[in-house]
Amino acid sequence: MNRRIGDRTLLFRTEPRVVSAAAAVAKNEDAGTYGGRFDVVLEDDKFGEESFERAECKMFCTAAKLAVEKAGLSLHHVRAMLAGDLLNQLITANYAARELGIPYLGLYGACSTMSESLLLGSLLVDGGYCSPVLCCASSHFSTAERQYRFPLEMGTTAPPTAQHTVTGAGALLLSDAETPHSVFSHVAVTAATIGRVVDLGITDMNNMGAAMAPACCDTILAHLDDTGYSADEFDLFVSGDLGVFGSEMLLDLAKKADLDLDGRYLDCGASIYKTEQNFSCGGSGAGCSAVVLASELLSRIERNEVRRMLFLATGALMSPTSGMQGESIPAIAHAIVLERRD
Amino acid sequence: MNRRIGDRTLLFRTEPRVVSAAAAVAKNEDAGTYGGRFDVVLEDDKFGEESFERAECKMFCTAAKLAVEKAGLSLHHVRAMLAGDLLNQLITANYAARELGIPYLGLYGACSTMSESLLLGSLLVDGGYCSPVLCCASSHFSTAERQYRFPLEMGTTAPPTAQHTVTGAGALLLSDAETPHSVFSHVAVTAATIGRVVDLGITDMNNMGAAMAPACCDTILAHLDDTGYSADEFDLFVSGDLGVFGSEMLLDLAKKADLDLDGRYLDCGASIYKTEQNFSCGGSGAGCSAVVLASELLSRIERNEVRRMLFLATGALMSPTSGMQGESIPAIAHAIVLERRD
Repeated sequence: MNRRIGDRTLLFRTEPRVVSAAAAVAKNEDAGTYGGRFDVVLEDDKFGEESFERAECKMFCTAAKLAVEKAGLSLHHVRAMLAGDLLNQLITANYAARELGIPYLGLYGACSTMSESLLLGSLLVDGGYCSPVLCCASSHFSTAERQYRFPLEMGTTAPPTAQHTVTGAGALLLSDAETPHSVFSHVAVTAATIGRVVDLGITDMNNMGAAMAPACCDTILAHLDDTGYSADEFDLFVSGDLGVFGSEMLLDLAKKADLDLDGRYLDCGASIYKTEQNFSCGGSGAGCSAVVLASELLSRIERNEVRRMLFLATGALMSPTSGMQGESIPAIAHAIVLERRD
Repeated sequence: MNRRIGDRTLLFRTEPRVVSAAAAVAKNEDAGTYGGRFDVVLEDDKFGEESFERAECKMFCTAAKLAVEKAGLSLHHVRAMLAGDLLNQLITANYAARELGIPYLGLYGACSTMSESLLLGSLLVDGGYCSPVLCCASSHFSTAERQYRFPLEMGTTAPPTAQHTVTGAGALLLSDAETPHSVFSHVAVTAATIGRVVDLGITDMNNMGAAMAPACCDTILAHLDDTGYSADEFDLFVSGDLGVFGSEMLLDLAKKADLDLDGRYLDCGASIYKTEQNFSCGGSGAGCSAVVLASELLSRIERNEVRRMLFLATGALMSPTSGMQGESIPAIAHAIVLERRD
């Protein structure tokens, strides 16, 4: 069976289903736009643990276990977990995989992880290799901030283009068959487009939306080119965490390519917090698009409000070391097509 | 088509071929056991660049481009690259993907990366999603040492159980069809077993072989259990970088499980340097098993000296942060079956 189409797009002809999902977040996220829709809200950023890193791992495990439980399954039913986070050496996902005991493939795509895990997880299910598989991504403000920027104790203020790392973990369970309790019965993954690294020379680590917008636009155009779809055949284009400024930039870039996304576009980062929460350009982090997808977006498909969605988690692939060495910020976006099936 | 077998093993029924491979290393590696078999030898550790990090990226790109050229193809023919390295945020692979311009999926599996990329790359080719795909892994002594341990300028001495990070990048090209110039015509990837995180409580960051041996043994046993093969149906079991001490531990663990690997076992880390080079327990790093596979092991299959090989790159999944927080070292090994096809 030939499932290739165009240069970068893969078709999932058996249409793996998203049968359940779970999201765990902290109080800031629950106070935002999608408040009340998350499964678990951390009482405080340490979640009863001794360090923020252990708290992030516990949050990840909580979301992963809940997604499996909601489907009426146990962890030993899950054939593989594909997951990642923002921490050096992926310690959140690695230690979570140790606790969960599920065969595990670690991914690093920075904030593009949710798309990457869905793309590779869908390959496993669609290709008939194994099912169900768990796709997860997480981030935590306090672990990311001290690793990427400054010690929390410094209390540095954020510039206007900065985004606030979302404390959140999202988990989706993909399956080739009904599970005892499917939370979703109508959400299928039908295609994906692999991202390419795009770098227009942005070096400002506080303006990652601008660095990621061109990569996002590149993947959208590649997807439409590969599939022959036009933009109006999608009800919704979702980007991961371009933020307020990066989202505007994406709409501009798309317009220049004769692509009008107005009225059918949402950025998880720009929308996750309310304006009065004062988080500059919005949210970011691998958990940002993961928790918005798991809590809000899948439900829109299930409720038939959205019939076809292009979901693009977006990642900025620099490191503090590459930044200090004067490198610009390479970015990537992988696209996943989520469709309503009756 | 159902390609699942047992709990953790995937069958690649179309048997994707390894059509070419390339390895770039530094002088220490070329002075070792497999000296003379590598494609490119760096004149010095900086490879003409301003930093060790840029040198590692250039070494990665050199190996990747060469693997593609050897197959008689250009970079634009390659449909996807699956790759990783040891650096925070995967900057080697990320910046290499920017230069190469190939659709890219970043993986973090520490020193297990070569197996992980072959596993996921084989899914893409075997499933009919895209071909050819490039699978790469790299490491560099000077970038790893200063990130994981101490500044190079300190000149710290290594304890007896330590391993020396290999400076090397390996790249393999997988394809579903003949390419204009296949370097290998007889090497097929026929199955893979996904690793599970195993952690027996080792906390000594200078004894990673001991931390990884149980994970390697776990995956070998799972593979044999899933497929029904016995050990003597394999000509060679290859582990990534258990080192001298970790290899002995693996043989012991296997024996306790009634599995005799004597005479049919090779560890890339334990064998890459000559004893007189005095690198304690041998080599390590994501590049270690990658360059030994690309230079020596694939040729053994091509020359019909080995007909069926189980290749297990082994990864220690801790970080300096998790170590300082008192965590033990979680480890993983993914298995790839490489077989001679006439």
